[in-house]
Amino acid sequence: MKVSELGQFGLIDTVAKMIEDARDNQAYSWRNLLTGVGDDCAVWRGDASNQLAKVDCQVQGVHFSLDIISWEDLGWKSLAVNLSDIASMGGIPRYALVSMGLPRETEVEDVVSLYKGILNLAGLTGTAVTGGNISGSPVIFIDINVIGVTGNPEGKYLSRFSARPGDKIAVTGWLGTAAAGLNILKHQLEVEESISACLKKAFVHPEPRLTEGRLLVEKGIQTGMDISDGLVSDLGHICQSSGVGAVIELARIPIRPEVTVVFGEKSYQMALSGGEDYQLLFTGRPEVIERVRVASDYPATVIGEITAENSGEVTILDTEGRSFQPETAGWDHFKK
Amino acid sequence: MKVSELGQFGLIDTVAKMIEDARDNQAYSWRNLLTGVGDDCAVWRGDASNQLAKVDCQVQGVHFSLDIISWEDLGWKSLAVNLSDIASMGGIPRYALVSMGLPRETEVEDVVSLYKGILNLAGLTGTAVTGGNISGSPVIFIDINVIGVTGNPEGKYLSRFSARPGDKIAVTGWLGTAAAGLNILKHQLEVEESISACLKKAFVHPEPRLTEGRLLVEKGIQTGMDISDGLVSDLGHICQSSGVGAVIELARIPIRPEVTVVFGEKSYQMALSGGEDYQLLFTGRPEVIERVRVASDYPATVIGEITAENSGEVTILDTEGRSFQPETAGWDHFKK
Repeated sequence: MKVSELGQFGLIDTVAKMIEDARDNQAYSWRNLLTGVGDDCAVWRGDASNQLAKVDCQVQGVHFSLDIISWEDLGWKSLAVNLSDIASMGGIPRYALVSMGLPRETEVEDVVSLYKGILNLAGLTGTAVTGGNISGSPVIFIDINVIGVTGNPEGKYLSRFSARPGDKIAVTGWLGTAAAGLNILKHQLEVEESISACLKKAFVHPEPRLTEGRLLVEKGIQTGMDISDGLVSDLGHICQSSGVGAVIELARIPIRPEVTVVFGEKSYQMALSGGEDYQLLFTGRPEVIERVRVASDYPATVIGEITAENSGEVTILDTEGRSFQPETAGWDHFKK
Repeated sequence: MKVSELGQFGLIDTVAKMIEDARDNQAYSWRNLLTGVGDDCAVWRGDASNQLAKVDCQVQGVHFSLDIISWEDLGWKSLAVNLSDIASMGGIPRYALVSMGLPRETEVEDVVSLYKGILNLAGLTGTAVTGGNISGSPVIFIDINVIGVTGNPEGKYLSRFSARPGDKIAVTGWLGTAAAGLNILKHQLEVEESISACLKKAFVHPEPRLTEGRLLVEKGIQTGMDISDGLVSDLGHICQSSGVGAVIELARIPIRPEVTVVFGEKSYQMALSGGEDYQLLFTGRPEVIERVRVASDYPATVIGEITAENSGEVTILDTEGRSFQPETAGWDHFKK
């Protein structure tokens, strides 16, 4: 069987099962491991706080094209996608290791620009870049590993496994902005400069929601993740992990007016399955969500509710309360 | 300038300088960072012991060819090269994150075999595989990140920066074995089965010297690294980092008789610059080295001495005491 037949998530399930079978409770590491495969970060018991670790990769021709993103933004983004996973646990990033594959013809000044982008974001977030690896490769890839800690003495963090029926579903910021930016870049659309700059920035220069992630944990939220693959796909992961269903209302999804102005009806599709927004998706009791909304300097919007019915499924209601079917749920690396 | 002109090590120097310029002593992470770029692992102050982290990568067509190595051995080796760096610090591995890039046509059962190899070695070394990332990619790459701790309450570890004139230079095991194995596999040499099996195994299934690494620290050795690029190249790193020279004697380099039988005079070249042996290279006062040799179940051989003269350089003496020039020093990813 080809991985293209099984799909990325089927392949992850296969590997996750193998890892679970290899679990060795005699070994110190396994005994102290709180969350391995299946959540945004690995979490294990540290000596005083819980440590977090995450690896994510940007591959040329798969995640990025240098026609669309500059080397410096590529560096920023390669770290940002990892920090977003630390944010999605409510954690604090500490250290980053950078592994790069580069073709021989790569310009040194491009690598310098790449590192500028990485170090810029690292500096802003208190992350120490502690080295890594540089290797030859026929295509460019940047694989960053971030190690962090939970931001509270009790070691609490956000998980995908704790959503309960009656929880409200909320998101930070706006959705579909990155997809809109990618669309403008890819098809070189002629769009008013101020609008196009805002949308492109969302795609090439995403800001991990670290402050918001910590606030969520502080205020008592237990369930959360970041939106990297797309809202429907990622909310589906929470539903599957928690054994619950979800109903979201199209009209409540926060979409920037700049997206609607350019893309009209297509904006909904971008918000539902565009991915790469790196906003936080979380659920909690209505009063806890309200506490977060009041305390946050950054927008947080309720978009729906967790249900006991339709376990593992995400239902979308349009403005007339009818079920809405998105064209695609999100991104899969291997399936067409 | 192309990276092929600057070379891998020049590129690492460039990046290391940028990272050093970005150091922020106000930030918790940087303040607690003991070793960043420039040694085998990153080391930072943990709460009770020092934590270690390392990332290393295997890229198809660069580090491996599936004509030569099986998927299962590839998995083993991808983790082994990282554990070897933990060994080279005298540390204990704890957690591994695996990031893979795979073409769409990859067979699922091959990925299963790959993970078998990874989990086999992980199990033998008490390493918990805590997840990672799977991505689409035009070429296969396996990027593993290992996090570990120093194996002693004082947090001591082996570094490249502490070699002193008068130190003896020693290595564990044998050198050139992996290069001999690769040569047999690549050129499909017809060699007696028992010999060929032993040599091929050294290349496809290297064993990280974790026990020996810890023993070195325990017995008082301060300077050490693993031999991945080749003896001359790696010893050169110790010389440059410590500001010393090195003289080694060709006749004292431990080479398996199986290598000499098949490759004759060429064995020396393999031992000096073949690389991928993943043995440990270390220096120390003669009495400390002797203590290690007596205590170790695994061979350790003195091959030369650290000098104050010829700082940064490795001098090789042949059996007649004349200077010997190796054809190549070792591996560089970008230089021809």
